[in-house]
Amino acid sequence: MNIQLALDRLTIKQAVQAAAPVAAYIDWLEVGTSLIKEFGMDSVKALKQAYPDHLIVADAKTFDNAVYEFEMCYSAGADIVTVMGAAPQVTVEACINVAEKRGKKVMIDLLHTSEAQVKQLAAYSEAVFCLHVSKDQQELQGGALSGSGGQVPDCLALNKSCKLAFAGGITEDSIRELIPYEPYAIIIGSAITKSENPVLAAKAFAKFKRR
Amino acid sequence: MNIQLALDRLTIKQAVQAAAPVAAYIDWLEVGTSLIKEFGMDSVKALKQAYPDHLIVADAKTFDNAVYEFEMCYSAGADIVTVMGAAPQVTVEACINVAEKRGKKVMIDLLHTSEAQVKQLAAYSEAVFCLHVSKDQQELQGGALSGSGGQVPDCLALNKSCKLAFAGGITEDSIRELIPYEPYAIIIGSAITKSENPVLAAKAFAKFKRR
Repeated sequence: MNIQLALDRLTIKQAVQAAAPVAAYIDWLEVGTSLIKEFGMDSVKALKQAYPDHLIVADAKTFDNAVYEFEMCYSAGADIVTVMGAAPQVTVEACINVAEKRGKKVMIDLLHTSEAQVKQLAAYSEAVFCLHVSKDQQELQGGALSGSGGQVPDCLALNKSCKLAFAGGITEDSIRELIPYEPYAIIIGSAITKSENPVLAAKAFAKFKRR
Repeated sequence: MNIQLALDRLTIKQAVQAAAPVAAYIDWLEVGTSLIKEFGMDSVKALKQAYPDHLIVADAKTFDNAVYEFEMCYSAGADIVTVMGAAPQVTVEACINVAEKRGKKVMIDLLHTSEAQVKQLAAYSEAVFCLHVSKDQQELQGGALSGSGGQVPDCLALNKSCKLAFAGGITEDSIRELIPYEPYAIIIGSAITKSENPVLAAKAFAKFKRR
């Protein structure tokens, strides 16, 4: 299992600094959508330069212009780039093709996809599928991803063979409910970056990797 | 009717230069998603600074983190910001609220929305609704928006009272089919920027504003 640290709503300098004390416990570093839209590819380049041994996830949330955006992110240093599963299938497929050509990875964000869309997307078995409760769903609706709320089992029923990533308000408590689903990646943001003691928090999440 | 010039797959300097000869015939200047993701908010700031009297459309394609992204784009100089209609409704609604607070506009991109989603979105009567054939649908599937293909009438049936924008491979020929639907905006990219004579092309589109 990989722990992905999501860096969002920060300057590039703050993002590089936020990752420093916890980098040893983290596998993947995510350059959040807000950093990409605020600072462009400089954000991806800076994180890759600062952490060359970590996998860098560019949360581009591509919805169109797949080849251009994916080539741009991989060229800037990303190892994994995200595409929205709600996008037209031609776009998702183009992302998969660029990744294959480059020997890199695609993460398909399942946020607000229909059951029919997820079934179609499941064919891209090389992708990582991200089951995602969004920031707005968390902050404006009080949502959070949990293993008991039916979200994960629903998704697993459609993607038994797929690599799964989980994101959205995951805490040291709620991660326990997700472990039985054998996640390929767990995406953690504020539970580490806004913790009183980020190192202790990161260590606590990292413990689950060995279970 | 407003003519929106889409500036995409360019450097900031190229975008500012591409708009210069045709600015007099254009109402809205769109900072394309590719510019935002490549250069961040510097792209929006540069276009607003170069063309302070034009409405600047930031094609942010927001799918989450609505308040942060919309505040960021408006603060950088955007007058209109785009949100994906395929996003969770809580996100679209948050965009509408930020726009209202700021006295600015929202464009809801209907790309790959379901009929049920469009019906829900139609309640946001202050928004501009963009009927959109995407770059990938155009370039990888040969699609283009047309008045005769059923796309526009389908949308109008759901949004008779809504402000409509049309985007996706629109040419001097196909714009004729769209005019009867009384568009609020027509979004033109390569038919101007990649024309042999961009000024003549822009003038030809601008003629339809007076009909």
